[in-house]
This record gives sequence, C-alpha cells and structure tokens, in this order.
Amino acid sequence: MARFFGQPDSVRVGQLFIDRRDLHNSSVHRPLQAGISGTRADGADSIVVSGGYVDDEDHGDYLIYTGHGGNDPNSRRQIADQSPDAPGNAGLITSMVQGLPVRVVRGPLRESPYAPTSGYQYAGLFAVTSHWMDIGRDGFLVVRFRLDRLPEQEPLHTRQQPDEDPAFATSTVTRRIRDTALSRELKAMYDQHCQVCDSAIPGYDGRTYSEGAHVRPLGRPHLGADKRDNLLCLCPNHHTQLDLGGMVILEDMSIADSRTLAPFADLTFRTDHNLAVGNAEYHRQLWTKRS
Amino acid sequence: MARFFGQPDSVRVGQLFIDRRDLHNSSVHRPLQAGISGTRADGADSIVVSGGYVDDEDHGDYLIYTGHGGNDPNSRRQIADQSPDAPGNAGLITSMVQGLPVRVVRGPLRESPYAPTSGYQYAGLFAVTSHWMDIGRDGFLVVRFRLDRLPEQEPLHTRQQPDEDPAFATSTVTRRIRDTALSRELKAMYDQHCQVCDSAIPGYDGRTYSEGAHVRPLGRPHLGADKRDNLLCLCPNHHTQLDLGGMVILEDMSIADSRTLAPFADLTFRTDHNLAVGNAEYHRQLWTKRS
Repeated sequence: MARFFGQPDSVRVGQLFIDRRDLHNSSVHRPLQAGISGTRADGADSIVVSGGYVDDEDHGDYLIYTGHGGNDPNSRRQIADQSPDAPGNAGLITSMVQGLPVRVVRGPLRESPYAPTSGYQYAGLFAVTSHWMDIGRDGFLVVRFRLDRLPEQEPLHTRQQPDEDPAFATSTVTRRIRDTALSRELKAMYDQHCQVCDSAIPGYDGRTYSEGAHVRPLGRPHLGADKRDNLLCLCPNHHTQLDLGGMVILEDMSIADSRTLAPFADLTFRTDHNLAVGNAEYHRQLWTKRS
Repeated sequence: MARFFGQPDSVRVGQLFIDRRDLHNSSVHRPLQAGISGTRADGADSIVVSGGYVDDEDHGDYLIYTGHGGNDPNSRRQIADQSPDAPGNAGLITSMVQGLPVRVVRGPLRESPYAPTSGYQYAGLFAVTSHWMDIGRDGFLVVRFRLDRLPEQEPLHTRQQPDEDPAFATSTVTRRIRDTALSRELKAMYDQHCQVCDSAIPGYDGRTYSEGAHVRPLGRPHLGADKRDNLLCLCPNHHTQLDLGGMVILEDMSIADSRTLAPFADLTFRTDHNLAVGNAEYHRQLWTKRS
C-alpha cells in the first residue's frame, strides 16, 4: 500500500486512541514500535512523540524532536551516534525537502502540558521546518528536527496555550505554497523536474525539490480544480513567475512573457499528463486583460 | 517619510478608531480620502474596506476587493473602466508581487458581519494572494484582488466566525517564506536581484520578485538574528536550496554543494552589505556534520 500523507478522512484533530494498535488501525501511525513512520524514498508520514529522548522539547505548536537510533531502551540514554541515513530520520529529512505534511501523535509518557493524560492523541499536521546534527546531552551525535504545526487546522484544546516563538511571530509571510496529494503525485511522476526548465532544486544529500502549481488558482473566486489537468510540476522560480503574472501559457503549450506574449520556452509533458487548454486560458485572461 | 509596512507597535488587532483622521494619526491608514494607500514603486501598505463597490465580498479571513477608479461617488456605480496603473491599484499589485503585508481596516458602512457597527476597526495584516481584471456588474472593467489574512496574528472577535474557503483548506502548506522589514529593505537595495545568480523573477507588468533569506535560521533553537549580516537577497530557487541544505556558504563567500563542498558560484555583495562569517558557518554546520 502506498504511504498516505495528510489527515485520514475519518480522523479529527484531538482524537484519542487507546494504544499503538488503535493508531495503526486508524491509519494515523502504522508502525507498532517505531516512533517515525517513513523511509528516505517516500518521506515520513507520521511520528509519535513519547518522551524517549532527553533533548526533546514540546511547545505545543512546534516541537524540537530527536530522531531515532543509538538509544538504550532501558536507560533511555544515548549509547551511540545517530545517523541521518537511518530510515525514519532519512524519511523526516525527505519530508522537509519535499514539503510533505507529517501527522503528529502525542503519547502518554510526556511531561508535556500538551500531551494526553493517557493513551495517544492526534495533534494535527506539522511541517518539518528545520533539521540539523547536534551533540546530545550524552555526548553522541543526534539528528534533530523542528516541526511546526500547519495553519488552517482545528485548534487543539490542551491544558496550556501553545507557546509562541517570538522570532517567528515578528516576521510576516510573503508567499505560501499550497500542495495537495495530487500535486505530490505529479511531482513524483516528474521526479521533481520543472516542466519549463527541467531543473530539480538540490536539497540535503541528493534529495530534490519542486512545487505543484495550480494554473487556474484554487479557491474563491477562481475556483480552479485540484485536478491533474490543472497542475504543473515547476521549480520555485517558474512557479513564482506563473503565480505573479510574469508568464502565461499559450494554446500550443509554449510559455510566454505576459506583456509581449513572446514565447521563450515550451512546457514538457510526460506520458499521461496534459494541461487543459481552458485552464491555461483562464490564467492568461487574469494577466492580459486591459482596457 | 518612507512608507511603513506591517503593524505599528502601538496598534492592536481589533482596535477601534473614531474616524479617518484618527486612522491617519495612528499610522494605520494615512490617506484621509483614498481607500488604498500605495503607489506602484512602493507597494500598498493599507486599505480601508468601506462598501463602496457592489462586487466586493467580505469573508472575514479573506476578502474580494475592488480597486479604485471609475466610480461615481453619488450613485456608487461604475461609470468608467478601472486601470491596473492607477496608483492604489498598481500599489496592491506590487504588494502581491513583492509579498508586502497590507493593513486592512473595515469601515462602518459595510453590510458585513465582520465590520464594526461604528467607526473603523483594524483587522490585521493581509497578503494580496491574487489579482485579476474583470467586468463588473455595471459593464466596465474593474481591477479585483483577493486578500488573505496572514496567520500567527491575534484572532479578530467578530459577530460571525470567519468563512473557510474549502479549496484552500483541503491543501497543505509546503513552504512558508517569512519576510521582515529588514529583508524588504535589503531586497530593495539589490533591486530584487539574486546574490547568487543575479536573476530577478518577472511578475506582472515589469515588477520583479526576490526573497530575503536568513542564513542562520530564525526561531528556536537556532535563534538566528533578523539582522542585515544574517540576510541575503535570493531568487526562490537559491533560497530553497539554501534552506533545504543543498548548498552551503564557504568562508570566502563562495557557494558550494553541501556534499562535495565544491564551490559553484560566488555571492555578490553591494556596498554596505556583508554576511557575517559566523552565520555562514552556523548554517554550514547544520548540513555537513556527520558521524
């Protein structure tokens, strides 16, 4: 079965689960033992935060999370180095590079005010926003991650208000890239190569990054569809240029400057993918209609 | 006085103002008459939503907003085409392309459940997420905008819960670019040109786009500073590559592949700007430490 990213339809933020078997059956976190569900190739789709590592921090809306490996199950101390190549760690790094959402579950063992008093609680979808190697308290290398809760989700009602991170709060967002399950599929099909310039942006250790671009915009009032024939796999530069009206797509699927309509490149398509002419036209009309 | 983007320190979300003079004095919205404060060169820093246009929609956390021009003040009907080159309209388009935050104020005239019953209310910072030309109800061209409220702000307590836009809610965020006042300054200094590849991403009608990149990441646990010597002006592709660990910065300010440490480009600096060697080193350590 393909790994599932995102929130299962039958699951709600804050939902409680009796045990790991219950989490497994609900497709919230499939492994029965491992804290991280994922591999380097797929990315990681879920983690369980259960207080196994002394260096972990739980701030409610963001976590500092230690990867797996080198931990003695009895003493809970590090007895060896962790590696960014261990499957779960490598999976979380891939999730960061490819912007995959991670389901976060809190276990009962935590001294965290955000954790359930018993059982397991689904806390929502988080993004991996940072990863780095560090020397842990026991003197061994550990792989650490920062995960931030994605916006536009139900709030989680906990015993304490989530912490704010002032450094994050003082800044403002300039551009949010939305991604859907379908666009992740498409990006995998293109192996993260841009349909305009064929580049794939290098991330950590050979991973690559691209973005799924909706040509007719999602949301009101444009009401573009989250369908394959409205999607392109693009590098961030060409995605930006498309979204900001610097380029348009002509009927023959060439790419043109939006002022001169002079084509400067062609869209490359792989088998089983095309862009609906009507979606390209809708986008073109947004930027070329003048009095 | 330079145009100020963002929320003035003395102002809070939900704050009420008696009249336009009061808004002016508090630096929330400077013009006493115009609904949009802005120009093409600067961008728009604030708008007042006051129900002057029949095509406007207020959904709480997002607005469909009509630009200015061609409106008869008595009948409130369109009597001529609007132009994307009128200063306020051009300013909002620049704010979209450059990701500038827009202060939104609601006036008393609205039939909106989010508007104050009298006076003016500051609703927070919004991003211009879309702009397009349309034929309005009176048969003339109008310039329309979608503005979305930025996350990580105090909620606005209104008579009605904000609407959700299901098309937006079903998707997840893959990458959020944070921008600060300082990074906007730096981007202007580089005229939106990338310090690695010298490109400036084309947006609508000759505008260009770039991103401010913090080299030592902001926020816990990295605690990078929002200071000029921790900032670069980059295109989205190189910003992504920097953030995702695909490239690092060497001591001589050359850019290298993070696996091989082979330099492939040099950072270009303009007068009065440099990157602190310690910030480049902190970033390099995040990606090159291995067991």
